[in-house]
Amino acid sequence: MVDLGGFVRDDLTDAEIEREAALYGPLTDAVRGLVDATIRTTVDDDEIRAVTAEVEALTARLRARQLPGAFGVRYNPEGRGRPWGNSVVGLRNPIAPPVRTVHHPDHTGEIWTEFHLGAAYEGPPGHVHGGVLALILDQLLGESAGSGRRPGMTGTLTIRYHRATPLGALRGEARIERTEGIKTYAVGTLADADGVTVEAQGVFILPRWARERMERDPDAESPRYFE
Amino acid sequence: MVDLGGFVRDDLTDAEIEREAALYGPLTDAVRGLVDATIRTTVDDDEIRAVTAEVEALTARLRARQLPGAFGVRYNPEGRGRPWGNSVVGLRNPIAPPVRTVHHPDHTGEIWTEFHLGAAYEGPPGHVHGGVLALILDQLLGESAGSGRRPGMTGTLTIRYHRATPLGALRGEARIERTEGIKTYAVGTLADADGVTVEAQGVFILPRWARERMERDPDAESPRYFE
Repeated sequence: MVDLGGFVRDDLTDAEIEREAALYGPLTDAVRGLVDATIRTTVDDDEIRAVTAEVEALTARLRARQLPGAFGVRYNPEGRGRPWGNSVVGLRNPIAPPVRTVHHPDHTGEIWTEFHLGAAYEGPPGHVHGGVLALILDQLLGESAGSGRRPGMTGTLTIRYHRATPLGALRGEARIERTEGIKTYAVGTLADADGVTVEAQGVFILPRWARERMERDPDAESPRYFE
Repeated sequence: MVDLGGFVRDDLTDAEIEREAALYGPLTDAVRGLVDATIRTTVDDDEIRAVTAEVEALTARLRARQLPGAFGVRYNPEGRGRPWGNSVVGLRNPIAPPVRTVHHPDHTGEIWTEFHLGAAYEGPPGHVHGGVLALILDQLLGESAGSGRRPGMTGTLTIRYHRATPLGALRGEARIERTEGIKTYAVGTLADADGVTVEAQGVFILPRWARERMERDPDAESPRYFE
């Protein structure tokens, strides 16, 4: 395994990655369902206590062998990235809604996504937490920069809330507005069926380790996932 | 139950609330542990599949009786609020770290908190997702406004990232900078052991239903939790 600024390159083939996705995706989805049920359940006290004990037992079984820390971001030799611990898009992270983005095939930086937010993402009653909207927009803007081959760490992020966003089906879009040296300015929106509810602007800055690596080897595959 | 702009008032006594907190808190903590283990486990495939099936079975047991939608925010007649579904502070929400805030007793709007972020909050390898920092700061600034008796919905939120924030122990602070009519300007920071890593400014706007209610009855208990 080679470590590039914290990004781990390993030897998994694409087929092995597919196999892992098919194994871990259903576990993650199952835990997402449990998160929702934990918030909404009204079953009897004894049943709550019994389920609590069983959840603890399942956790112990999973912890029988585990990574020493967080998942990180892994790459295989073909440059296929696995940001599977990511809080917004992570295939193995039950707190990720998840958001699954579609990138413009020509690397223009245009991306879009449709996703659903349930009880776990609530702030004001029946509505999405304003900070969850900021979380998702940070990811979308960062992915837009990366998709346009301008990856970066968030420098500043500004969110404007037009109105409260109801829980449920939402759509997100982001694109690169302009670039200036190592800075990429990205913009994006989230919308419900009635239109845009919140918009964002962000500045993304290419880290030094990535700049140095790209200068050394301009053709090297660049990590798209800094967020 | 009385619904005030989506805020539900119910008849739970403080003692009943304590009893519920002691029942649901451990379930939520257990599911938080399961979320972390789901991201980090490296046990055998068959064990992953077996645990997946058992998680689904536990979810079905909790769903035997459940709220029709999200938890909402509930108040008892003493004005004690329960934002238990909240994505940042919710006692019943496993995706909340949780962040537990301390409010200045004189309602100055000053609040602070110490919390820990593990694998579920990762963006860049080993570091907190930039959007998770925005999520938590939105909550802190909103609570600061509410704590200073200036509750509001987020109008705009600006986040400035000084450097990457490592996963682990963090401290947050927020306060009211100034007020202008229905607008409250709040500021805040998050810091690790080496100092501030990110700062935020936010504008919080008192919703019309709350303004009208406060005009009708200036002594009425005002919901502190809009986020």
